[in-house]
Amino acid sequence: MPQTESPTACLLLIGNELLSGKTQDANLAFFGVELAERGIRLVEARVIRDDQATIAEHINECRAKYGYVFTTGGIGPTHDDITAESVALAFDTELELNAGAVERMRSRHRELNEARLKMARIPIGASLIDNPVSQAPGFRIGNVFVMAGIPKIARAMFAAVADQLAGGASIHAGNIEVFAAEGDIAAPLQQIAAAHADVEIGSYPFTRDGRYGANLVVRGTDKALVDRVVDEIAEAMRELEPR
Amino acid sequence: MPQTESPTACLLLIGNELLSGKTQDANLAFFGVELAERGIRLVEARVIRDDQATIAEHINECRAKYGYVFTTGGIGPTHDDITAESVALAFDTELELNAGAVERMRSRHRELNEARLKMARIPIGASLIDNPVSQAPGFRIGNVFVMAGIPKIARAMFAAVADQLAGGASIHAGNIEVFAAEGDIAAPLQQIAAAHADVEIGSYPFTRDGRYGANLVVRGTDKALVDRVVDEIAEAMRELEPR
Repeated sequence: MPQTESPTACLLLIGNELLSGKTQDANLAFFGVELAERGIRLVEARVIRDDQATIAEHINECRAKYGYVFTTGGIGPTHDDITAESVALAFDTELELNAGAVERMRSRHRELNEARLKMARIPIGASLIDNPVSQAPGFRIGNVFVMAGIPKIARAMFAAVADQLAGGASIHAGNIEVFAAEGDIAAPLQQIAAAHADVEIGSYPFTRDGRYGANLVVRGTDKALVDRVVDEIAEAMRELEPR
Repeated sequence: MPQTESPTACLLLIGNELLSGKTQDANLAFFGVELAERGIRLVEARVIRDDQATIAEHINECRAKYGYVFTTGGIGPTHDDITAESVALAFDTELELNAGAVERMRSRHRELNEARLKMARIPIGASLIDNPVSQAPGFRIGNVFVMAGIPKIARAMFAAVADQLAGGASIHAGNIEVFAAEGDIAAPLQQIAAAHADVEIGSYPFTRDGRYGANLVVRGTDKALVDRVVDEIAEAMRELEPR
């Protein structure tokens, strides 16, 4: 769908555990939904390893290419948490002990050991992102938002920065489920898609209770048009029924 | 961990529905586990849109950079399934009606309509990947394996090609769960990590029943070493306990 005016975004999911299959990602779908509601197009997501050069390289590539970059993961206190220093490298800056971060963390831990102080080391020039769950903040530098990997904290951090995001027109979605094989509905669906270039029509096959079906999803910025196209698809599917 | 001899892999998850949050990915963790068992390092995964130029660009970037590229999604019969033509574009070749693919699909559908025949249009020079679930095949061209997005079919296709993959030494993993805040275990953990450069040690925090904990994961190709490091971590954690 034509949305040249909508800001774009890229999500960098950082963590070896996601690539080893040890941890099932639970952040991508969340960001996808939240950004779409704000009219920001999530154009790409990348899952990358906890490696300083790798992280810095992807940050630099993506911040040049997309309006916003959101990262999750690697900002904890342990030795494998290296996202902050990697972002500093990407921006050619240094980490410094951030007084605001120290203060927030003291509200939770009266004494901060070296490992916890590591979480207060923030790139020079960054602004903090609130973490109402466990206090250790994320940060924003340029168009890059650096957040925790733990889903509950990532969600809270996103809520804390949502106001800073310039969105576009919200993207509306409508859908209908059809119990038919995709091979049988493809032709009428293609006709409808060709007639409506201003919406995006997706067909997502599934099997349920041994029956084949497809979830047909219409997305676009014009809600009335989305509803109309959904109706049109429903009508076309009813006509197929007697086959 | 040093594994210069291990082949590398990249996963391209293709589909707007993954980026809109409409569909929760269920393939990344599967590939992560399966590849690690075969000694192939999944170095990166990308989630990209159903857009021909985009898909072709990522295919070309990743097949040059990594030993293997696996794609999932976009090989069905509907108008939004454009992975095959995008791969053909990346390899500067054309799609052709593949007789072997037609034959497989005829075993399921006596008559193949135009939409189903689309699934038999395979890049010239590719070899087919069996699909024991619903017959419409995937394909391999060069180091790129093109598979379905439906998890059940993706799994069956991977099983069908696993023998074609040159693996390295299997990667073994051991782990222990510790009910302690990461900020309290970071220092001893870092010491152990520094002493054992041949394994990778990850700390993955969680909360369960309101308690903070971390899953400490040790990964490496030397199983005895992995076990020894897990024991060493367990011992260090016991020493922390009385605090």
